[in-house]
Amino acid sequence: MASARIREAREGDCGHIMRMIRELAEYEKLSHKVKINEEALRADGFGENPFFRCLVAEIVPAPGDQEAPRVVGYGVYYFIYSTWTGRNVYLEDIFVMPQYRGQGIGTKIIKKVAEVSLNEGCSQFRLAVLDWNEKAVGLYRSLGAQDLTALEGWHCFGFEGEAMRALAGQ
Amino acid sequence: MASARIREAREGDCGHIMRMIRELAEYEKLSHKVKINEEALRADGFGENPFFRCLVAEIVPAPGDQEAPRVVGYGVYYFIYSTWTGRNVYLEDIFVMPQYRGQGIGTKIIKKVAEVSLNEGCSQFRLAVLDWNEKAVGLYRSLGAQDLTALEGWHCFGFEGEAMRALAGQ
Repeated sequence: MASARIREAREGDCGHIMRMIRELAEYEKLSHKVKINEEALRADGFGENPFFRCLVAEIVPAPGDQEAPRVVGYGVYYFIYSTWTGRNVYLEDIFVMPQYRGQGIGTKIIKKVAEVSLNEGCSQFRLAVLDWNEKAVGLYRSLGAQDLTALEGWHCFGFEGEAMRALAGQ
Repeated sequence: MASARIREAREGDCGHIMRMIRELAEYEKLSHKVKINEEALRADGFGENPFFRCLVAEIVPAPGDQEAPRVVGYGVYYFIYSTWTGRNVYLEDIFVMPQYRGQGIGTKIIKKVAEVSLNEGCSQFRLAVLDWNEKAVGLYRSLGAQDLTALEGWHCFGFEGEAMRALAGQ
């Protein structure tokens, strides 16, 4: 039987990853916000000083099967710094293609992120999720995540566009 | 008259910064979460591959005044990666000592972060704020920030401690 495995992304995966970044943004109803492209992803993630790290989930065909492995999910993460606990990990994106959900692939990605975090000496990892995305919220809760917005009141704020330029006096 | 200026932090500022990190956590009613110390801050922020960058606000005495400049605020930030817009900045902490508030020092720190962000080719910067911290929320809004939790429904989730170790199979 085919099974899913998680591995570090390679530059050659960027086409798949970019396609899934767009699928995730569509699912989040925020497609219009995607401004980057595959070339930027290659340069930013696979150059000398990468700005992020990426995991991919791929379906490995059963032995004897003629098919090539299929990339069906990804996780983008990077290192952040907490002035309370030091270096930590932030999981920016996690996505599994709809037709491959319900097989524990998302859980495998999260487990790998936890493993990488501990191996790198980090005590935590954070992520952000849309409150109406009940499946994702349910998954993270079932795996032991805390909703810090509900528990402590944290709100995500962003400065961009005209506000940024005005602030910088440009 | 004394005036406030914003500059990049130096290793010698770490004692002041650590003191203010504790003051900020107290104000946020989350003091028990501070696990790092001054030594960690020096190593993490001022070594060969720093994990964060830091600005400090200092009061510069009037010409002829005998006093040394006083560090009265700080901002800790680092680079993150958005799969929508590429490399961005995250402002992890921003703090001005209570007795120096109302003079525009927080605004000066935010303006400097916007300037650094644009200079580094970033189109946005993000931060998180506690919803009951009305003064901070009011300041960010007045400077053009968007509350992405209120607007789009983003919640901050965190995995830590036992949940992390269980996920990593440790």
